[in-house]
Amino acid sequence: MPKIVDHEERRHELGQAVWRVIRRRGVEGASVRSVAREAGWSPGALRHYFRTQSELLSFAMGLVVDRIERRVAQLPSADDPRRAVERRLQQLLPLDEERRVENDVWFAFVGRALVDPQLRAQRKAVHSELLAACRRALEELVERGRADPVLDLALEAGRLHALIDGLALHTAVSGRAVAARRTAALLARHLDSLA
Amino acid sequence: MPKIVDHEERRHELGQAVWRVIRRRGVEGASVRSVAREAGWSPGALRHYFRTQSELLSFAMGLVVDRIERRVAQLPSADDPRRAVERRLQQLLPLDEERRVENDVWFAFVGRALVDPQLRAQRKAVHSELLAACRRALEELVERGRADPVLDLALEAGRLHALIDGLALHTAVSGRAVAARRTAALLARHLDSLA
Repeated sequence: MPKIVDHEERRHELGQAVWRVIRRRGVEGASVRSVAREAGWSPGALRHYFRTQSELLSFAMGLVVDRIERRVAQLPSADDPRRAVERRLQQLLPLDEERRVENDVWFAFVGRALVDPQLRAQRKAVHSELLAACRRALEELVERGRADPVLDLALEAGRLHALIDGLALHTAVSGRAVAARRTAALLARHLDSLA
Repeated sequence: MPKIVDHEERRHELGQAVWRVIRRRGVEGASVRSVAREAGWSPGALRHYFRTQSELLSFAMGLVVDRIERRVAQLPSADDPRRAVERRLQQLLPLDEERRVENDVWFAFVGRALVDPQLRAQRKAVHSELLAACRRALEELVERGRADPVLDLALEAGRLHALIDGLALHTAVSGRAVAARRTAALLARHLDSLA
């Protein structure tokens, strides 16, 4: 399947270019034109991937999800289940420069989805996936004896999800003012409170 | 001071018009022009209050803060301190149609502040005020024996603040899909967990 391989390779190459542009210019500075220039492609060559600012954000949001999934898959196995869960959830929080860029993409995407109905299905899918990840994390803590088994996990997943998105929002709006250390401490405190 | 009285009255009248437009057309549909028409003023007469879309959002955000403060001041006194604190915090959450409109204004304002530095001081002030309100709520719970006195209140205020903003964000992005009842239950569960 040489064509599919080629498509995947080109998609990866384009993703790298999108990421370099966003890192350098911020989400606001990433346009179809600036990405084409960075990738060394003609704007027309991008049309299979994105044609508008909304589609560019949709593509970038896909990159964010890929990046998080790759990091989670590559985490070293931890003997301590609480530590393993905490590390996994930390991949969702803007605790370093790379994750702050992901966070900025996420909020730009959310903002765009409020006014562009075409993005809403993807936004809902990301939202549901994050809630499911919170639920799995809590189930693992309960199974391994690190969270109270009487917890209402549906409710707790919603609470953890809201906490994570609230922390992400506070970093997005405050920038460096909200220290990564404080964000990590709040997640740790929350996990402690469930034990 | 007839001029000041007049100014306050006119400001109130304009605020009513802004709110009617936002309720009817959403934040996106509120423009200097549509507000002037609603108020029956010339666009020039609005210039002491706002001239641009950013300044309109800034004005609307001021209305949201006033509305919350007025509701909190008018809450009936509750014998139960936990109930009193919970009711106060509920004024910050999008639990009914009026508060969902306030929530939409808040997120439109936050989004605009990301790209308009002139709004950042106000955004920071609102953020700090919300954090301080969370802190006061927790202090009251501790004083009245309804929260564990060993809690680190600075950390807990940050956690409660992130939870509230995360719940508000989830309502803003999901609309009615996130039921108000669930949002209220998550706040209640959080307050329970501190006791």
